[in-house]
This record gives sequence, C-alpha cells and structure tokens, in this order.
Amino acid sequence: MARRVTLVTVAHGIIRLVELRSAVEWRDDHLEVIDQTALPARIEIVTLSTTEQVVDAIRRLVVRGAPAIGVCGAFGVVIGLREGRSVEDVVRAVGRARPTAVNLLRAVERAASAGPDPDAVLDEVLRIQAEDRASCERIGELGRAELADARRILTHCNTGRLATAGIGTALGIVYAKAAAGDPVEVLATETRPALQGARLTVWELRDAGIPVTLIADAAAGAALRAGMVDAVAVGCDRVAANGDVANKIGTYALAVLANRTRVPFYVAGPLTSFDRQTPTGDDIELEQRPADEIRRVGDTVVAPDATVWNPVFDVTPAELITAFITDAGVLRPPYDASIKDAFTVRASR
Amino acid sequence: MARRVTLVTVAHGIIRLVELRSAVEWRDDHLEVIDQTALPARIEIVTLSTTEQVVDAIRRLVVRGAPAIGVCGAFGVVIGLREGRSVEDVVRAVGRARPTAVNLLRAVERAASAGPDPDAVLDEVLRIQAEDRASCERIGELGRAELADARRILTHCNTGRLATAGIGTALGIVYAKAAAGDPVEVLATETRPALQGARLTVWELRDAGIPVTLIADAAAGAALRAGMVDAVAVGCDRVAANGDVANKIGTYALAVLANRTRVPFYVAGPLTSFDRQTPTGDDIELEQRPADEIRRVGDTVVAPDATVWNPVFDVTPAELITAFITDAGVLRPPYDASIKDAFTVRASR
Repeated sequence: MARRVTLVTVAHGIIRLVELRSAVEWRDDHLEVIDQTALPARIEIVTLSTTEQVVDAIRRLVVRGAPAIGVCGAFGVVIGLREGRSVEDVVRAVGRARPTAVNLLRAVERAASAGPDPDAVLDEVLRIQAEDRASCERIGELGRAELADARRILTHCNTGRLATAGIGTALGIVYAKAAAGDPVEVLATETRPALQGARLTVWELRDAGIPVTLIADAAAGAALRAGMVDAVAVGCDRVAANGDVANKIGTYALAVLANRTRVPFYVAGPLTSFDRQTPTGDDIELEQRPADEIRRVGDTVVAPDATVWNPVFDVTPAELITAFITDAGVLRPPYDASIKDAFTVRASR
Repeated sequence: MARRVTLVTVAHGIIRLVELRSAVEWRDDHLEVIDQTALPARIEIVTLSTTEQVVDAIRRLVVRGAPAIGVCGAFGVVIGLREGRSVEDVVRAVGRARPTAVNLLRAVERAASAGPDPDAVLDEVLRIQAEDRASCERIGELGRAELADARRILTHCNTGRLATAGIGTALGIVYAKAAAGDPVEVLATETRPALQGARLTVWELRDAGIPVTLIADAAAGAALRAGMVDAVAVGCDRVAANGDVANKIGTYALAVLANRTRVPFYVAGPLTSFDRQTPTGDDIELEQRPADEIRRVGDTVVAPDATVWNPVFDVTPAELITAFITDAGVLRPPYDASIKDAFTVRASR
C-alpha cells in the first residue's frame, strides 16, 4: 500500500487545485498523486515509490482518466527500471493494470522503448507528460471554436485537470471557453458507480468558478428533451479505427438520447486515445469492476450480496458522434478516413 | 413525526415480507407501514395515527409507489375525518402530498366522496385496497401471457409488493411468471436518487427466490445493446390521455434505448394510474425533489453545496411504448383510442 499524507480536510471540499500543479507529479524518485477516491471529502496526496504501488493506484482509481493513467503508468516504468526490473517485466506489470483505455499501454510502451536506461526513460516520460498538457490546450482551443454557439454543455464522468496532465479533454473545452470569457455552464452527470462527475467534476469546476449543475445519470434524457443542453461533450478511453468509442458506462445512452433530440454529441481526446489496431468497438475489452461498487453507494451498503453486472465502459457507435475534437484537429465523418488522415499528418511531421 | 417500532435488524436484509402482509396495513384506528427509506438495512414499521404523519410519510418516501401512496392517502382520509377535519380540508391536506402520480388524488377523492361518515369512508378505502390487490393479479396474469417469450426482463425503480397493495405492476408480471413456473430473471436498475431498485426491488425478488441482477442506471443501454434483455417492463405514475407516461426519472432513456435495440417496452399499471383529464405528458406536473438526494448517496455526502437539478419523474412519449398491461386489458396503439375504450368498458360494467 502507498504511504498516505493527509494534507488538509476542507469543509465543502473547496481548495485551489492549482497548489497541486497536476494530478500526477514526479518528485526526483517517486510520484505524488492526488487520491481521487477520497475527493472531495479529503484531499490526500499519495506517494508512489514502487511498481506495485503504481499498479495498485491505477487499479483502485486513485489515479484515473485515460491520459492521466497513461502518464502515471509511464512514470511507473522509470520506477520499475530503477527497482532493477527488466523492460519486459515492467511493461507487463504496468501496461495492463486496466484494460480499456489504450493510453496506458501506449505510454508504457513508449517509455520502455527509451530504456533500459532509467534516466533516458524519465526524459521520455517528461516529454509524454508535456505533450499531454499541450494536447489538452489544443483540444480546448479547437473545441472552443467548434462549440462557439454552445453555452450549456452536458458532460459525463470527469475529463478535466484530474483526468489528464493538463486542463482536460471535454472539460478542457469548457476551461478554454471560460478562459476566453465565453459564457459557459456545465450540466454534470453524477456518473455511477464511482461518481466521478459528482465528486470530481463538480469540485474542479466550482474551484474554477464555472457554473455547474449536478444531475442523476438517469436525468440526462429529461434534460436533453427539455432543451437544457446545447451540446454534449465527453472524453474517450479508446477510439477504434472506425470511430467507435469506448468510454465511461452511460456514454452510449447519452449519445442515443442526444441523437434523438438533435443535440450535437462531441468526443474529445488526444490521438493517444485512438487505436488503429482495434478495428471496431466490438474489439475493445470492456473492464468489469467489482460488485461492491454497485452494492455500495459511498460508504453505505444498499444491496448486500446482490448479484451485480458492473461494466464500467460501454461502446458508442461512430454514427452517433457529431465530431471528434482532437489535438490533431476536428475529425468528421466518415471517421475511418478522417482518423487515418489524422495519423498520417501526425506521422509526416 | 411518526412513532417508530424497530421490529428486527437482519444481516443481509433478508426476511420474509409475507409476515408483513403488505406495505400499507390498516389496524383499527391507525396505519402501519414499512419504512421504505430504511430498507434493506433495517426493517422498521412506522405507525401513522394523524393526517400530518400520513402526509409526512408520503412526502419522505416512507411509503412510495403510485398505487401504494393512493391506498395510504385514502386511509389518511379516514384518519383526518376522525380527527374532526372537514372532507375538503383532508382532501387538500393529503391529496397533493406528492404531485405526479394521479393515484393519490384519485383515491383520496374517491374515499372522500363516501364521507363525511368515517366508517363509510373506511369501507370504501378497504374496497380501494382490495381492488388494487385484484388489479395487480390481473396485470400479472395478462402480462404473463403478453410476455410469454420474455425470460430476461429489465425493470426500473420498484413496482412490486412494496409499491402496491398486491403483487405489483411490472413486478407483478414477474411474480405471475414465477408463480406459474415460467422461467424469469430480472435485470434491475439501481434507480438513483432514492435507489428503489437497488434497495427494494433486489430485496423483494431475492426474498421471493427470483434471480435478479443489479446494474447502474447508466448500464441499461449496454445491457440492451448486448442482447441481455428480452423485454423492458416499468410501472407508471400517471398516463396521459394520449398514452404519454410519467414515471421514475430514467424511464424515458430506457424507452429510447429499448426502441433503438428493438426490445419491446411495456408499461404496467392499473387504470387508476391513467388520467384522461391530462391530455399529454407535457401537462403532467413533474416533481422536483431536494438537492440533498443528489448531493448525498446513501449516508455519504459526495457533492456538498452542489447546485442540483433533481426531477424524479420524466415523460416517455406514447410512440415508444409497445403496449400497456392494465387491469382492463392490454392496450395497444393508437393509445388515445385504446385508453378511451378501456374506460368505456370499465364504466359500462
């Protein structure tokens, strides 16, 4: 288990996140991460000094968000090599700590490819981190232009500063709009089972002074039908070659409901979340998580011993997606072509 | 506040509900109801002896489920008249304790129409209760035939023995199938915010020995898309003259998702839930409930001070409904005609 340092317990959960620069930070020979399972009730910094601690933090959602676990896992390669592990061993240990988001395995493999010298790997991981930060900025900028007429944005889960090395993906668009003085307000789903919307998105946005209204996941349809939403914007854990998207459970429903009410549905993410080796959404491994995440809500056991089905990701078919907002541009249908083009342009740079 | 008698606290929440005959029981001069806010962790019987206690129990969801609050409110008329209140006063006090389900106001008005003699009202309310019990049996029987090929039934909220005076509406169909030896299993959504699916439906069905699997509300779309569901069956709080249905928040999303995956979507309920004075779903008052229901999950505060939108009902347009299973028959589109016919047949008996 990781050693925990309780920094502060804050009434109402409000503290400026900027003091903690980002969700995942490298300190000479270890990582410091905000324990996202404890927010917003407690702000705790967890120190990760061993490969096992890195894997455990990713598995238990101490660190979550596809880009953030990519960066965290890549730093785990540095830690693993310094522990004397082989490159192959550390990739095997960290790269598949969670299966759905492609960022983790990609970042770990990229870090490992700079090995076996841990210092060379560290330089590469710091580049990965800086690139992710820059990707968020670019997504924010492009999204701000694309969603210029969308003031009221419905989002799901958490895709902001806690989920990435920068300002976020879907929430990065919100931050970019706010920074530019554009009017923006957010409707945030609570996002069962782990409640990343209720716990993390509300906390982040309130901290930034951006209006946010929390709703039950099941209320999103009513909000869309009532005309309360100008655009839906979500992140992505893996985008297949055809544009199918694996993302937090409930994303598919939001896409279907947005489609029915003709509200545009945007997916935001860096190209590192796109996996051209995965032909379609049917080929993506969707993580099943423990039954206790559903049997309990918060600290309360509501359905002891219940048989549970707890897939924490679903697949949204490409046909329901208005556009992808990526760090390589806004991608439009047909996605097999636009995704291929984005990678070709990126490779030719 | 109602006086509470704790009967028993049971590990794993399993006790035979049959010992408590039904969710709402009349005892000479007062009501005894199961506190549905405490289930399944604690089985508590609440005594309701005053009009205020009846109203409070309905408002706080101690008693819930459209038919059950109708019966409970009607008994409240007996209590109110015995307290010396006028018929008008007691109808005003109890009839609108919650606004969306039409059963409450209808049952209260029907009870009051037998007044002002409290004994005559009591006889009428016992008839209302017996009729609701019989309606559930009839819905179960018709639903069993209509859903003969549906083994795997997805349901939302709780529509069973805790929600009615009998075996339930949508769950009444499940009980009827099980009683007849037909294979049946249930996929139950947890149903935020009050978690009636996780807390009540799982408890009821496990008690009855019927297989039930609990899922997050947001996982219903994935279950439908994965072919895990033969039919969706839900209850109703109010059905408008055109067949639009107000029911627990999230019902609309289930209907849209079922429609997309061509899974039949059934609404079960007695004719007392139909309101021909309400032309369409747009004319139904949808209850907004306190922000704390979303800020908290169980006993845990997850989003302190968050701005919240908490509509606990939504409207499902008639066009998404495969059929209504009612105590007056299976109603099929066009619903304006079939609903009118059902009332005409009922009136002519």
